[in-house]
Amino acid sequence: MATRARLLRGVANGSCSHVSGLVAPAASRGLPKAAARLSSACRSSIIPQTRCLGSRSFSSTSASRAAKLTADSYPGLTRDSRFSQLTPEHVAYFKQLLGQDSAVIDGINADAAADIEPFNEDWMHKYKGQCRLVLKPGSTEEVSKILRYCNENMLAVVPQGGNTGLVGGSIPVFDEIVISMGRMNTIHSFDEMSGSLVLDAGCILEVADQHVAERGYIFPLDLGAKGSCHVGGNVSTNAGGLRLLRYGSLHGSVLGIEAVLPDGTIMNDMCTLRKNNTGYDLKQLFIGAEGTLGIITKLVVQCAQRSPAVNVALFGIESYEKAQKAFREAKLQLSEILSAFELMDGTSQRIVHQVRGGTKPLENDYPFYCLIETSGSNSEHDYEKLEKFLEDVMSNEVIADGVVAQDATQIKTLWSWREGITECIGHWGGTYKYDVSIPLSDMYLIVHDVKARLSEAGLLGETDDHPVVDVLGYGHMGDSNLHLNIAIRRYDKEVEKVLEPYVYEWIEKRQGSISAEHGLGLAKKNYIGYSRNETMIGLMKQIKTLYDPNGIMNPYKYI
Amino acid sequence: MATRARLLRGVANGSCSHVSGLVAPAASRGLPKAAARLSSACRSSIIPQTRCLGSRSFSSTSASRAAKLTADSYPGLTRDSRFSQLTPEHVAYFKQLLGQDSAVIDGINADAAADIEPFNEDWMHKYKGQCRLVLKPGSTEEVSKILRYCNENMLAVVPQGGNTGLVGGSIPVFDEIVISMGRMNTIHSFDEMSGSLVLDAGCILEVADQHVAERGYIFPLDLGAKGSCHVGGNVSTNAGGLRLLRYGSLHGSVLGIEAVLPDGTIMNDMCTLRKNNTGYDLKQLFIGAEGTLGIITKLVVQCAQRSPAVNVALFGIESYEKAQKAFREAKLQLSEILSAFELMDGTSQRIVHQVRGGTKPLENDYPFYCLIETSGSNSEHDYEKLEKFLEDVMSNEVIADGVVAQDATQIKTLWSWREGITECIGHWGGTYKYDVSIPLSDMYLIVHDVKARLSEAGLLGETDDHPVVDVLGYGHMGDSNLHLNIAIRRYDKEVEKVLEPYVYEWIEKRQGSISAEHGLGLAKKNYIGYSRNETMIGLMKQIKTLYDPNGIMNPYKYI
Repeated sequence: MATRARLLRGVANGSCSHVSGLVAPAASRGLPKAAARLSSACRSSIIPQTRCLGSRSFSSTSASRAAKLTADSYPGLTRDSRFSQLTPEHVAYFKQLLGQDSAVIDGINADAAADIEPFNEDWMHKYKGQCRLVLKPGSTEEVSKILRYCNENMLAVVPQGGNTGLVGGSIPVFDEIVISMGRMNTIHSFDEMSGSLVLDAGCILEVADQHVAERGYIFPLDLGAKGSCHVGGNVSTNAGGLRLLRYGSLHGSVLGIEAVLPDGTIMNDMCTLRKNNTGYDLKQLFIGAEGTLGIITKLVVQCAQRSPAVNVALFGIESYEKAQKAFREAKLQLSEILSAFELMDGTSQRIVHQVRGGTKPLENDYPFYCLIETSGSNSEHDYEKLEKFLEDVMSNEVIADGVVAQDATQIKTLWSWREGITECIGHWGGTYKYDVSIPLSDMYLIVHDVKARLSEAGLLGETDDHPVVDVLGYGHMGDSNLHLNIAIRRYDKEVEKVLEPYVYEWIEKRQGSISAEHGLGLAKKNYIGYSRNETMIGLMKQIKTLYDPNGIMNPYKYI
Repeated sequence: MATRARLLRGVANGSCSHVSGLVAPAASRGLPKAAARLSSACRSSIIPQTRCLGSRSFSSTSASRAAKLTADSYPGLTRDSRFSQLTPEHVAYFKQLLGQDSAVIDGINADAAADIEPFNEDWMHKYKGQCRLVLKPGSTEEVSKILRYCNENMLAVVPQGGNTGLVGGSIPVFDEIVISMGRMNTIHSFDEMSGSLVLDAGCILEVADQHVAERGYIFPLDLGAKGSCHVGGNVSTNAGGLRLLRYGSLHGSVLGIEAVLPDGTIMNDMCTLRKNNTGYDLKQLFIGAEGTLGIITKLVVQCAQRSPAVNVALFGIESYEKAQKAFREAKLQLSEILSAFELMDGTSQRIVHQVRGGTKPLENDYPFYCLIETSGSNSEHDYEKLEKFLEDVMSNEVIADGVVAQDATQIKTLWSWREGITECIGHWGGTYKYDVSIPLSDMYLIVHDVKARLSEAGLLGETDDHPVVDVLGYGHMGDSNLHLNIAIRRYDKEVEKVLEPYVYEWIEKRQGSISAEHGLGLAKKNYIGYSRNETMIGLMKQIKTLYDPNGIMNPYKYI
């Protein structure tokens, strides 16, 4: 049992203590699920200033800067002259429709700059629009009347949910009208038998998840911004997040959608049933359309049974090949209870330790680390499976060392070594970040190749005359989703030239995706060709023209 | 332990034997999964003559009848005069393109009636077309050239997979050219790490499943016709089947599609990754389009880890309310291992017993029976969960009695009480069948209402002067999917008048679906309005016109 004793140690608030054998997992000790699992809101609060941007550079100091106008950052963009300029008559129409105080923020007739600012700028202060009118409809009918009027009067609009996006999709570029969905936030019904949840698009994800949690269910999506993002925005951007490995994509779990088309047509496809084979599944087009075809107003979401038992383990691995073996073995042995399989490379963990200090979960350093989470209905069963798995991969030398969390605090501590990367990597000045999908066999290779390329160019080094500190990779291994990060001391055009289009071409060669889960927005509009062929892009434009012939919906973005 | 002793008995080849306690489940005794679970091919072979038709009547004696021409059965349909008549020149083009012997069956220049017949008629002998040319392309490029030529020459086509459909979707109505996909049946690759399978549309489902089974995975779809249906047809009809409860719909598990549009455009959307947020997810339109937008030629399918342990239990229940409670409790306690929850009413089980004889699994009769299947990675854990669940629902009087299968033979026997219904119900002459989705709380009510209505009309009774023998319901309770069956002594227009449009209106009132999993085809083309509003139908027609402006793809059907 030497293997076992070496493997299974406690991790109390970050400090390791050896234990002689297994102890019961968190959930069986009466800790509620909410405590046993680091809540996303909590996790995101650790990293207030830096997050993954999807594809482009973002300095950690930018939060303190005044955001540049997007129109200035993207000098190639010009305002589409087909769109009307907003007039007092337009504003008067909306005030009459929605009511002046609660539903219209009017930057035309009054000095409402401060009120409008949150709608004109993203939380990263990377994108800044020049919108002068924010509308807050309270019903689908109001959304319909707004869009019909805008379409007839050639007024461009930007649908906005929680404004937590990473690619500038919810921020106006010029003077587009913002349609903010926050007032439409009713949870209409939840069927405790089937698990189907009917709710407004403006509901906050965490509120929705809490609603079903109280009834024993789980919303099939979880992500860092859950405390402020809207479910309508989640569906519009086809958000991936932490639960995709287990519950699949929103294309499978969204049962129904109500959306308003640009001409005001209300598309009511609010089926609450799992099976309905009566015609084209048009709602699918709106999942991931980023508000370019219409505005999602209501949803039906299939929620899954919530798992009362959660276990987390973290282990060190000698090579990427062994990390793949560990993943294959985890799928085999943990199968139906596996709910996360995250990869962190040695560089990322070294940086976290360097920046935060404290005791590492494992004594030695390894080139790779994996974090496994299981969720199931019986904690003893799950722990037994996890124990067996860990013993197998230890004795077969697939993993070199590992720890299993024994209570909620330890679960939180282990997750923090994965979730803390984003914060720590910005320590030296900034980060270039790419959120990509690559077939698993090649996934980590991009980190090596990018690092070699930057070294060869003389841009990476330990001294201050090198702009690049290091290159690292981590992410949702279970979904072939890597976060490629380049930690930098300063913003440098030379670095960018070495990175792009190299990174995109590298991904294209391996049929990867340049946007795994963050969407296109403004940031990646010009790069879609690396992941989609011309025929596909042509067919997409055909759909855009079909639904939005005047192009008023979220212009300048997407495709 | 009285409860337990009463509950857990053996079922050996249909005869019950009491056991004093629990025995190990099938899989832990070394029985392979294939044996422990009744294969679908085996199950379907029990019922060669009758199957669920989706919506309309079907006499069990019809198999022996010569099929009527669809054009005669549906006198309201007339051949679209925009379509060209097939000429020897057209045929010559295709022969030159595909090669005369293996890829063209030519009913124009030769007497190929016998060769063409299987493509002109469905397996139920319910639909019969007048096609005189069958094309069997061997590559995507050939499909592209065929469709471009047909589109330019206004030749209507019908894509055909395994021809196992239930609504006439794959059979020509008049002289449409059949494009049979059987020659495109290569499995291109399987990624054992991610579970993504790349294969041709013409692959047989069972072959695909076997391919991944050998590698520890499961195809996320299973249905009775798996031995002959094509995966391309499955995706084109968005087949539901037995695994939807566990693995979700094809909208979630199909990662990539290659399809040829009517103008010959090859839409290559063959992403092998789970996450790819780069533009509209156009492939979704082809899932369930029933060949009306184009022809699917290749697929990428996300396969799940295969579960080595399978357990099956069957129990008797006193009311539909208690059946719902049992379902809710099964979701709660069996959660991640639950792979089937099937409902059978007392009438259905009485009929099976009446027709087949033998020993019933349970001694007493109950108004409802449920069959539960669990699939997991650890048979002891699964059995323990199942045992605990059964003890709880027994002691709480949610269920009245139950048995657990103890080996593969018993699993097969228990499934046969569910799967045998279709065969036995046709015993008296025929069956009117409806495949519908209804919110679970109301689902069974339709059986009561239809029975009362037929009784009030004097059509249902024990004597031969009543056309209706009985009304019953069974189906995939886990998916809110009911098979409403009316067993009849003879075909009777009066019965039909009482049933329709009553059944459709009943479903419409409860926002149910008139086609849960079988699609529209020809059979339900005119009934879509009961499940979709005019706006939705209008938007669907817009998509049809966009992709197929000449209307050559599978005409006279769908919408």
